[in-house]
Amino acid sequence: MGQLLRVQNFTVSSDGYGAGEGQSLERPFGHADPGTIMSWAGATASWPGRTDAGGSRGLDDYFTRDFGNNIGAEIMGRNKFGPQRGPWENEEWQGWWGDEPPFHTPVFVMTHHARPSFTLSDTTFHFVDGTPAAVLAQAKEAAQGQDVRLGGGVAINRAFLDAGLVDTLHVAVAPVKLGSGERLWESPEELDDRFHHDVVPSPSGVTHHLFWRK
Amino acid sequence: MGQLLRVQNFTVSSDGYGAGEGQSLERPFGHADPGTIMSWAGATASWPGRTDAGGSRGLDDYFTRDFGNNIGAEIMGRNKFGPQRGPWENEEWQGWWGDEPPFHTPVFVMTHHARPSFTLSDTTFHFVDGTPAAVLAQAKEAAQGQDVRLGGGVAINRAFLDAGLVDTLHVAVAPVKLGSGERLWESPEELDDRFHHDVVPSPSGVTHHLFWRK
Repeated sequence: MGQLLRVQNFTVSSDGYGAGEGQSLERPFGHADPGTIMSWAGATASWPGRTDAGGSRGLDDYFTRDFGNNIGAEIMGRNKFGPQRGPWENEEWQGWWGDEPPFHTPVFVMTHHARPSFTLSDTTFHFVDGTPAAVLAQAKEAAQGQDVRLGGGVAINRAFLDAGLVDTLHVAVAPVKLGSGERLWESPEELDDRFHHDVVPSPSGVTHHLFWRK
Repeated sequence: MGQLLRVQNFTVSSDGYGAGEGQSLERPFGHADPGTIMSWAGATASWPGRTDAGGSRGLDDYFTRDFGNNIGAEIMGRNKFGPQRGPWENEEWQGWWGDEPPFHTPVFVMTHHARPSFTLSDTTFHFVDGTPAAVLAQAKEAAQGQDVRLGGGVAINRAFLDAGLVDTLHVAVAPVKLGSGERLWESPEELDDRFHHDVVPSPSGVTHHLFWRK
């Protein structure tokens, strides 16, 4: 079947924003409240951040439990790793993901600023510069036959979509407006020229949009 | 989280039948046409029986690709293994599943008639007699911490439901009537006293019913 590049569980507001304005160390989503945007995922049994044994096992849980299914590497943008911009000033700070990052694979952080790789638990972060196609080639090799997850944020997803490299895309649209920030799209239908598109309303209130290459 | 007992991708007609009447070697679903009932699954990229590289990767594919996700054993009824009834007369015939069965785990076939275990590729079939609770205990031990799939057919699913042993249940309701055969339910709402219940219409025409324990 070949290795796919998959976007999974990427959540945007009803007006298409994946993050608000003004990202900082304390506010990774800027003025957006991640608790509101991501509440559909946090309510599921398979959400990686869950600390108790509860959680729903309905439709939304199929999406969160597919997160690591046959994934061998992730590509993410620098802003998903941390709020620093420009040359790395503090290499002791190892990103937003804690001592046990939820990725469990190699992660390729796209940045123009070199930095040595390091490992936290079973996740190794590599810092890579290059075109989307070149970074994808590195990630596919590291994934050893499994698929590659494209982890966002918005700018990275747009760059790989524009380069025609995304095979499947799952975006959950939350029933909340942000008004400004990092915008994935004005409307999901913008992608219909290139992708098949299932629209699946969830009982939780989000609408899942599933795209796969035509 | 503990080990779950999960029913997955079990498909019934709009009037609740999981198989037609008159099962035989040539017609595992009796008078029902499995091509019609199961077409939603056969159209997906992750369907185990797929022989080409195509297939949809929308909503229905989430269900077929979850088939083996964290599953360590399957329990099935004798009629899912083969059409023979009573004492085994032909042990050379090794079931409906071919030389490469799609299970890839130990499989526990429930039967009152003993027969030695055997292995085909990476699937080992065991033939076990006992209560649902006793067979589940065996399967959980074999699954080594992973979940157990309850593979059907109807009689087996009903027996485990009646014993209160099912943790999650996914039933796809196909837009076709059978009129007679093995009936899972008169209506999906029969289970609502014991389970949470998401109803998810798919663009393919089936309706996915997702139940998880209250």
